[in-house]
Amino acid sequence: MRGYTRALLREDLLAALVVSVLLIPQSLAYAMLAGLPPQIGLYASLLPLLAYAALGSSPVLAIGPVAVLALMIAQALGALPAGVSPAEGALVLAAEIGLILAAAALLRLDALASLLSVPALHGFETGATLAIAMSQLPVLLGSPAQGSDLPALWHSAQAGGFAWAAWSAGFGVCAGLLLMAGRRWLRGTLSRLAPLAVLLVAIALAWYSEARVHGVSLVGELPPLHLGFSLPRLDAALWLNLLPHALLVALMAYVSSLVVAESLARRRGEKVNPRRELGGLAGANVLAALTGGMPVAGSFSRSILLHDAGSRTRVSGVFIAFFMGLAMLLLAAPLAWLPRPVLAATIMVAVLSGLTLKPYREAWRYARPEALLMVAVTLTVLLVSVAAGLGLGVVGSIALLLQRTARPHVALIGRVPGTEHYRNVDRHAVECLPEVLGLRIDESLVFTNARNLTEVVQALLAQHTGTRRVVLLMSPVNSIDFSGLEALRELHASLKRQQIRLDLSEVKGPVLDRLRASGWQRWFEGQVFLSHHQGMSA
Amino acid sequence: MRGYTRALLREDLLAALVVSVLLIPQSLAYAMLAGLPPQIGLYASLLPLLAYAALGSSPVLAIGPVAVLALMIAQALGALPAGVSPAEGALVLAAEIGLILAAAALLRLDALASLLSVPALHGFETGATLAIAMSQLPVLLGSPAQGSDLPALWHSAQAGGFAWAAWSAGFGVCAGLLLMAGRRWLRGTLSRLAPLAVLLVAIALAWYSEARVHGVSLVGELPPLHLGFSLPRLDAALWLNLLPHALLVALMAYVSSLVVAESLARRRGEKVNPRRELGGLAGANVLAALTGGMPVAGSFSRSILLHDAGSRTRVSGVFIAFFMGLAMLLLAAPLAWLPRPVLAATIMVAVLSGLTLKPYREAWRYARPEALLMVAVTLTVLLVSVAAGLGLGVVGSIALLLQRTARPHVALIGRVPGTEHYRNVDRHAVECLPEVLGLRIDESLVFTNARNLTEVVQALLAQHTGTRRVVLLMSPVNSIDFSGLEALRELHASLKRQQIRLDLSEVKGPVLDRLRASGWQRWFEGQVFLSHHQGMSA
Repeated sequence: MRGYTRALLREDLLAALVVSVLLIPQSLAYAMLAGLPPQIGLYASLLPLLAYAALGSSPVLAIGPVAVLALMIAQALGALPAGVSPAEGALVLAAEIGLILAAAALLRLDALASLLSVPALHGFETGATLAIAMSQLPVLLGSPAQGSDLPALWHSAQAGGFAWAAWSAGFGVCAGLLLMAGRRWLRGTLSRLAPLAVLLVAIALAWYSEARVHGVSLVGELPPLHLGFSLPRLDAALWLNLLPHALLVALMAYVSSLVVAESLARRRGEKVNPRRELGGLAGANVLAALTGGMPVAGSFSRSILLHDAGSRTRVSGVFIAFFMGLAMLLLAAPLAWLPRPVLAATIMVAVLSGLTLKPYREAWRYARPEALLMVAVTLTVLLVSVAAGLGLGVVGSIALLLQRTARPHVALIGRVPGTEHYRNVDRHAVECLPEVLGLRIDESLVFTNARNLTEVVQALLAQHTGTRRVVLLMSPVNSIDFSGLEALRELHASLKRQQIRLDLSEVKGPVLDRLRASGWQRWFEGQVFLSHHQGMSA
Repeated sequence: MRGYTRALLREDLLAALVVSVLLIPQSLAYAMLAGLPPQIGLYASLLPLLAYAALGSSPVLAIGPVAVLALMIAQALGALPAGVSPAEGALVLAAEIGLILAAAALLRLDALASLLSVPALHGFETGATLAIAMSQLPVLLGSPAQGSDLPALWHSAQAGGFAWAAWSAGFGVCAGLLLMAGRRWLRGTLSRLAPLAVLLVAIALAWYSEARVHGVSLVGELPPLHLGFSLPRLDAALWLNLLPHALLVALMAYVSSLVVAESLARRRGEKVNPRRELGGLAGANVLAALTGGMPVAGSFSRSILLHDAGSRTRVSGVFIAFFMGLAMLLLAAPLAWLPRPVLAATIMVAVLSGLTLKPYREAWRYARPEALLMVAVTLTVLLVSVAAGLGLGVVGSIALLLQRTARPHVALIGRVPGTEHYRNVDRHAVECLPEVLGLRIDESLVFTNARNLTEVVQALLAQHTGTRRVVLLMSPVNSIDFSGLEALRELHASLKRQQIRLDLSEVKGPVLDRLRASGWQRWFEGQVFLSHHQGMSA
């Protein structure tokens, strides 16, 4: 804090004010989306921010309730044991997520974030966005239907005869149109104030028209601000019940926060420390669990706003918490009049504004299987559940990676005339030697392809009878695992039976070190050349 | 059959006779190991061989009951619903395995074999070998204890007060010593006849000494040879109950058979067709299910024997089936007198003779994490179950592969003086340019490492201030998935912000084709050079 100047303070304070104005409606709305009382969203936007400011690493990651997590929380709390309220469940979930993230930080598991490929992450986020928008549609229209996946929602709406309420729909649709108009035509400060302004107008109208009498569901009186520490319910069966959900929410909370923090850090020329991000999120969730909140993470929209508004240090998070506390004291009475359809409109406009189909098109053009995985993940999130979609994304990405390493591209290479370069004979005009076969295997030698090595080489040998020597160009072989070592030994033995010599060229330093350490000179009779050209002309 | 000469016939017939002599005791023993009546092993050694001869591709793969599968079957049949006999369960299991393998053949899933790495396979086989030997020890000693994993066996033995029976142990230990002596000191035909000779001597002794009176458990009268077709029990709950086991046994049956068939084919200069292997095994298992057998696969020991004894075509399988039928007719009466401890000795000597710790040592020297995985798989098979060990092997191998791709080796490269070759500056005496940074990333750009690309390059840039151009040598980049493409675009954008130009060199043909097809020229402003030297000197 020594170097914290007045200039930094002013910038952080201003940025915090801007973000708080958006956080008030979002925190109420996302708590509602998670199936929780609205004030829980406000509590989750207070002390957890202080924990992240103390432990995290990004000056622009805006912690608090997040739409995608809210949907996951709603599904996790959908099957609570009897006698447990959703609010109690949310505390246990937040505690578990905090402990899981803390354990991941201690065990240096920050690399687990890499399990989510771009297709998995984007497919997941699009599906979740659509699911969130769908789940809010009945609230916006004053319909009693509910459900966080498409089939459940459809059945519920059908059971209710697709009923809707004119007053509620009026509030919801008007608020939605105003919010969209604000995003479209307002710029700068005005556009940032629009959501809060719409909320205030809606509150005034609801009060003036006595909306409750007309059947519009209101937020209702918030309990007085009561900040105290209390442990979440310590019930082993409940903790075990929520653990699988906590693991998935924790993964998602970490990855989505990291993606935002890293992309903003790159724009700012800063760096993010993944381990400290784990620690910061862990602290924020533990504090949320202890102070009556719900699971939190870094919000995409609010973090961009925090960056745009000029936040310079993590102290801005402390200021946001301060403004939120102030808002709870001043706004508790008016917020009671806020119609829920207006909150639903806030959610729908916020999530749908981020919807883009561009990555689907780009993936389709670049890699069909990955584009199909993206679509499959989206549909699974919509039709089955968020957890199933996330699981499919991870398993599908791994399966595609294994498949790619399993069928390596193998090229017969020849010399580009007049140079020492060797290229694929099918793509370039190159010269080959009659008795020496130069081959390049475009993949690391690992267990997924090890079984094929001898077969592939023998197939090429069958087309080039009279070969007396094979030189493998090893520059694309980035690693050789134990199965690959066995495969190399087997290839060596099989060529030896045919009295063909096997040489290697351009073996990478780390690969050669390990081959030597394994004592391969006991069976390998060939030579290792520094360049493929030396190997071919030897 | 047109080219089937009398010479081929003679060789196949002789090889078949040699293998049949070993198959008689093994088929009885492995049925017992699987917890089934002994004659089921004989049935599994008849018609399934004809199916493989018709559909398979290897002339030396000896189909029939196999020790490792027998252990897996025993564990699968350990939790059958009430009212289902083990023999009925074995038929359902064989039918499911046959159908799974047939489906895999139709869907061209022969590449699934590559999911089992060498460490997983070897760790699994060693664990299974030890578990088999252990489970036969009480039978050999005439103890009532039983169990197919170490804790179960220990508890069972403890509950029985570690009781054993002198007469049974006498038969078992003597037979074991004789079999070991035969393996050690006999060569050629004599050594092959030894197991059958031991059996015959044991039968004679048991008959002469009236062993049953002394409490020795005998094989007992075999039902008369009755070859008829009947469908396995069509009970949906039972099929569902056995399905997970069937999937694992099918994977193991396929992989273990393929490994044997391929290694022998290589010695013979022949080729194995993995899809036809799937078909052959599928047919063999379906026929085993229809004719009162048990799940079958290619046996390691008998296949080597079949190769050594000179089998030339798959017709040898037909002859083996013929000899087995003949043996059942002639030997049914004497086999009833065969003491079970002698069968246990046959199993123990057969499996333990294949035990080797060499791969553990070699893996330890070459790759610690893979050696540890091997040990963990072995222990899991011994202490938990065969299925858990197999699962750990697959998941562990994939995790190690992902971990390797996640942390790629990155080298700063410079020019070997006087040449056009570029090598790691840390390993070679090379020349670098002041404003151009040459980098080589030794891994494909895939989702596991995509998130790190920009960070790694920026870290190197921070050490080389004043850089105006980065040239990435792409020859080790064998593929770029959609996440990798996004990472490349991000790196490009991040360098552009710093006014550093990004060029690529030696991009592989297939990789460049896909980059071009994706329309990357819309954002990529650098050049692609055919050689890194051109790129550096441009």
